[in-house]
Amino acid sequence: MTDAGIVDLSARIGKEYPTLREVIAAGALMKLAEDAARRSPDHALDAINWQPPIPSPEKIICIGVNYPDRNAEYKDGQDAPKYPSMFMRTPRSFVGHNTPLVRPRASAQLDYEGELVLVIGKAGRHIKESYALDHIAAVTLCNEGTIRDWVRHAKFNVTQGKNFDSTGSLGPWLVPYTDESQIADIRLTTKVNGETRQDDRTGRLIFSFRYLINYLSTFTTLMPGDVIVTGTPTGAGARFDPPRYLKPGDVIEVEAEGVGVLKNGVIDEA
Amino acid sequence: MTDAGIVDLSARIGKEYPTLREVIAAGALMKLAEDAARRSPDHALDAINWQPPIPSPEKIICIGVNYPDRNAEYKDGQDAPKYPSMFMRTPRSFVGHNTPLVRPRASAQLDYEGELVLVIGKAGRHIKESYALDHIAAVTLCNEGTIRDWVRHAKFNVTQGKNFDSTGSLGPWLVPYTDESQIADIRLTTKVNGETRQDDRTGRLIFSFRYLINYLSTFTTLMPGDVIVTGTPTGAGARFDPPRYLKPGDVIEVEAEGVGVLKNGVIDEA
Repeated sequence: MTDAGIVDLSARIGKEYPTLREVIAAGALMKLAEDAARRSPDHALDAINWQPPIPSPEKIICIGVNYPDRNAEYKDGQDAPKYPSMFMRTPRSFVGHNTPLVRPRASAQLDYEGELVLVIGKAGRHIKESYALDHIAAVTLCNEGTIRDWVRHAKFNVTQGKNFDSTGSLGPWLVPYTDESQIADIRLTTKVNGETRQDDRTGRLIFSFRYLINYLSTFTTLMPGDVIVTGTPTGAGARFDPPRYLKPGDVIEVEAEGVGVLKNGVIDEA
Repeated sequence: MTDAGIVDLSARIGKEYPTLREVIAAGALMKLAEDAARRSPDHALDAINWQPPIPSPEKIICIGVNYPDRNAEYKDGQDAPKYPSMFMRTPRSFVGHNTPLVRPRASAQLDYEGELVLVIGKAGRHIKESYALDHIAAVTLCNEGTIRDWVRHAKFNVTQGKNFDSTGSLGPWLVPYTDESQIADIRLTTKVNGETRQDDRTGRLIFSFRYLINYLSTFTTLMPGDVIVTGTPTGAGARFDPPRYLKPGDVIEVEAEGVGVLKNGVIDEA
């Protein structure tokens, strides 16, 4: 992506790097972005179909309850959690930018959650907080769309309500990570049909980006292309009384300063 | 695998089918097994390093609390659950047969869970129970090794305690699925150092294999090579008083009739 349009890198380097995951693993993301910026665009922005920037990451780990006031929403009288809550999503549960989310046949409770996403560049286990940010290759956005009644199907897990096909989105693009100021305290908002529903700053995270990378790498080796979805501010549709779930025709925009706007409509499952 | 040893199929068809996932997607598993059975083995059983039979499935979905008496172990006075509990594991959290599980630095509470595994053959969404078993390509075994204190780190999820690198195992091999009698009511046992700790039959599952495939496909498209770990009987180490966690030198054997024995030792993380 340049200011003028889309540079088709697949046509030029697709054999060497089938997806951005392989570009990141080779440490070539920044160079690629710089090379692309010097080329004329091949396509206009509205002439392509968007997909998640990393179509098949090894893992997509989502952090729950990571902004102030979110813990209080559960109204269970418990103190702030000592450790982060987390779950995984399949790549299949996400669409790209400008592609409609799918409200499934099984439920009318499709809800939005705007989140900032870290994409891992350098592999690591037992990563110290002081070096944690060196492992980030890029940032992007997520609408971590959720089927509310299905997250309560099970006793101990939210898996099924977080993994309906095409209920979330990732993108629109990767912004190469260069400096902590890109993520340290940026504004994150979610709008539905132009109305602001979520509005917070990453500086208020309960579990910081450094902490998350350290904690996750205690149990799993973080790999190039891994996607960490870092939590959503208060204000999802389920928090209203009555709840304000998404319906066909709605337009959701997740925006973060310096990253962009991730925009999606909603359709019903065929 | 034949009775006489290992036939090296990678050397013969590795370009067309890099892993068994691609073989399954092509519907070629049974034919491949039959072809291999007619060849002379290339390697003795003890001459290879074992890996999980599907090294990179699109998803690994694990079912919790699926044998009688398991729900009662939680002692929370709740009735049997209406829907299955489930979580995902990364491929990286598993080793193959005859390969040691790794007790991590972070905890001494490594525990075993013997389970029967279904591997999906035919893709599908909204799969009816009556056709569900037609979507199975193969069966195998899992030691769904768990770090007990870390499954309680979070409020609503067991993700981190289920995803320490190399704490579980899958294998030893895939047994092509041909008939419901292979899975309908087979004995499943787990031994630690020769002592039987878990012993139950798949006929007693709370959520049947047909139900699971139907339920999972309500939210996600099941894909060739997807791994469904179907739950463990009562008798894990955490259920003893005092608990009997695994330690370096222990040997765990998960066995199911007609499938085989999945055997692993234990070492400490380096």
